[in-house]
Amino acid sequence: MLEKRRPLPVKEAIERVMKRVTHLSNETVPLEEAYGRILAEPIRASHHVPPFDRSPYDGFAVRSSDTKGASGESRLSFRVIDHIGAGAVSEHTVGEREAVRIMTGAPMPEGADAVVMLEQTVINKNTFTIRKPFEPLENVSLKGEDAKEGEIIVEAGTFIHPGVVAVLATFGYANVTVAKKPVVGLLATGTELVDVSEPLEPGKIRNSNGPMIAAQLARMGIDCRLLGSLPDDEDACFELVKKAVEECDAVITTGGVSVGDFDFLPAVYARLGADVLFNKVQMRPGSVTTVAHVNETFLFGLSGNPSACFVGFELFARPALLALMGNDKPYLPYEKAILDADFTKPNPFNRFIRAVYTSTRSGARIRPAGFNKSNSVTSIARGNAFIVLPGGTRGFQKGDEVDVLIIGSEEGVSSWELN
Amino acid sequence: MLEKRRPLPVKEAIERVMKRVTHLSNETVPLEEAYGRILAEPIRASHHVPPFDRSPYDGFAVRSSDTKGASGESRLSFRVIDHIGAGAVSEHTVGEREAVRIMTGAPMPEGADAVVMLEQTVINKNTFTIRKPFEPLENVSLKGEDAKEGEIIVEAGTFIHPGVVAVLATFGYANVTVAKKPVVGLLATGTELVDVSEPLEPGKIRNSNGPMIAAQLARMGIDCRLLGSLPDDEDACFELVKKAVEECDAVITTGGVSVGDFDFLPAVYARLGADVLFNKVQMRPGSVTTVAHVNETFLFGLSGNPSACFVGFELFARPALLALMGNDKPYLPYEKAILDADFTKPNPFNRFIRAVYTSTRSGARIRPAGFNKSNSVTSIARGNAFIVLPGGTRGFQKGDEVDVLIIGSEEGVSSWELN
Repeated sequence: MLEKRRPLPVKEAIERVMKRVTHLSNETVPLEEAYGRILAEPIRASHHVPPFDRSPYDGFAVRSSDTKGASGESRLSFRVIDHIGAGAVSEHTVGEREAVRIMTGAPMPEGADAVVMLEQTVINKNTFTIRKPFEPLENVSLKGEDAKEGEIIVEAGTFIHPGVVAVLATFGYANVTVAKKPVVGLLATGTELVDVSEPLEPGKIRNSNGPMIAAQLARMGIDCRLLGSLPDDEDACFELVKKAVEECDAVITTGGVSVGDFDFLPAVYARLGADVLFNKVQMRPGSVTTVAHVNETFLFGLSGNPSACFVGFELFARPALLALMGNDKPYLPYEKAILDADFTKPNPFNRFIRAVYTSTRSGARIRPAGFNKSNSVTSIARGNAFIVLPGGTRGFQKGDEVDVLIIGSEEGVSSWELN
Repeated sequence: MLEKRRPLPVKEAIERVMKRVTHLSNETVPLEEAYGRILAEPIRASHHVPPFDRSPYDGFAVRSSDTKGASGESRLSFRVIDHIGAGAVSEHTVGEREAVRIMTGAPMPEGADAVVMLEQTVINKNTFTIRKPFEPLENVSLKGEDAKEGEIIVEAGTFIHPGVVAVLATFGYANVTVAKKPVVGLLATGTELVDVSEPLEPGKIRNSNGPMIAAQLARMGIDCRLLGSLPDDEDACFELVKKAVEECDAVITTGGVSVGDFDFLPAVYARLGADVLFNKVQMRPGSVTTVAHVNETFLFGLSGNPSACFVGFELFARPALLALMGNDKPYLPYEKAILDADFTKPNPFNRFIRAVYTSTRSGARIRPAGFNKSNSVTSIARGNAFIVLPGGTRGFQKGDEVDVLIIGSEEGVSSWELN
């Protein structure tokens, strides 16, 4: 337990969290449910791809040696001896000036080593002529050119996106070994909070952090258990958090980590015997973010302020939860962009400003998403990125290149301005 | 029906698809299920945010006029007359040199117009002293500073991401009006295809496009109906596609759109009376991609080659399906990046090369994801982006800046290299 609130640099705070990560165990899911999970074992090619020499076009399989000397003036004629669709295997061997009509994807017949595309021929009943010679293996997709049997195609720890699904299907993975999802519990604190369906009363606001975090988790493919609100009493708080820790791999709380008279969480962490990894970070918003760890369970104590809560989740909870599943890319994607606003007042803390990131023909631009305080909720809704301004003595001006973390990555763009 | 296969420019092909988009109807879902859906009505602020003047800190609410003249040499003393947590409303009016102990988020008591932060005080039982004067409204979050009642916070057509969920919760949207999801049917064609759980036989390959497209749809939050494989017979094909068109908003087929003897789809489109928007596009891979439209149903005829199928889906099916839901950002996000490979051979067609996009401290880099043919499956698995090379006479070299479409946007990065 830290005695005093010494703000940690963001990078060090993230490192302290990530050092505590241990991998969850694995489970097997049907391929249809594998999208979005984290691969727990590498995908190894169970056979060559293609599994046999095949034709990439509709056309005729021939012996390239028979095509020598073909030209516009001296067309060469071939006789069609068989006709095979994809999936079929010709029983014929292609001999001199013979050809097999072949469809895209069909295996090359014996004897043939080149494919004449349909549009390269003039057909006359059971024969056709060509006007150019073909090289050995011309227009042939070679066995193993895409993947060799035994080759590792995708490493463990990879997010299973649609391309990974395609490879799993190719190699017959009807069932896939993936990391189990973490069990995440969600507890709101704050005597001012009413539920979304309740009317507002004087002094009250609706609990927006709970649904927001549930959606942040859903974006990562993780469900959450809504464990309700922490009561306004330290003993009851302790019992509730203790039970949550026993049930969950991570317990996320919002509010209650500050120094107010009703902020019981620091005391609860102490009574649980949790290691408080930090309780103050050199960042705005979210400086009061606390992360503790006990019995392999993470306790993410996020701010009750919506923007601060959102930032704390994405910076600390997101990478930890993904890394629990062994994901090798747990951090938010980042970009560079040109700042479209001034931040002339220097700030000693790192700032994560909710912002709108836009791709343009001349490069990426970024501007604040609106009202820019830790308690803002509208800027989270309007933003799709964070502007990252490192703490220090200098301000930032319109036109400066800044770092950006992309948080609205499921969203696309309204139009393409490509070259 | 096009008589001849005239390859359309990609941009024009996309425009032809998007012009046929009509909006699906709406439905209402509980807030907990709103993440990932498309908002069908704007979110309007049902009250000011904050709904009342409130304290952003733990501290003491005072009258700023009482703090005039405070300094280190001449500290001023205040008497605490009440103590309120967040959610509570003080019944007292703050008078001369009086203060109310106030928690973060609690409403300002009558009379007070500034908040002294806890750390700005020296407390002695029921009184405290300050050493600096406070301005009117200093440390006060003003009613409506984040949002004004009646203001539109998020427009219809927006993807409901976690920040939008937070705003929905704030304004009491326990139920949310969203666009219905399109009903999408999936039909594989190809006599060479066996199912993922079946053993390979000579000439056969496993159907990887079906599971891949199901995952591409899942990434967009859309389910699909697996309608099986198209039979090797035109009449049976017609009946199956006809039934699919009646049931679905979009029918996606893979394979069967080429000019091979078993490519029945062109004939099926004709018998259905479908408008064939195009059946050839100036792009590699995926030049045979066909899109047709009949009775408000889209028919996406994608290539049977995995890479070509993948590209065709992302370029045409993705924006159309999102736009059916009224989504205002249906296109893949794009970036600029520095090319890490040579493409010296000019190509008259636009190329969409499966690639690995990496953010670095000095900017974004892009390299091909491996084997680069339309029938490659491994490059889809290894890639997270497309390199977009416009068709034309020039090649591209290492170090050139190129356009990139981001397709692995759910994935993060393995480390942060921020300034």
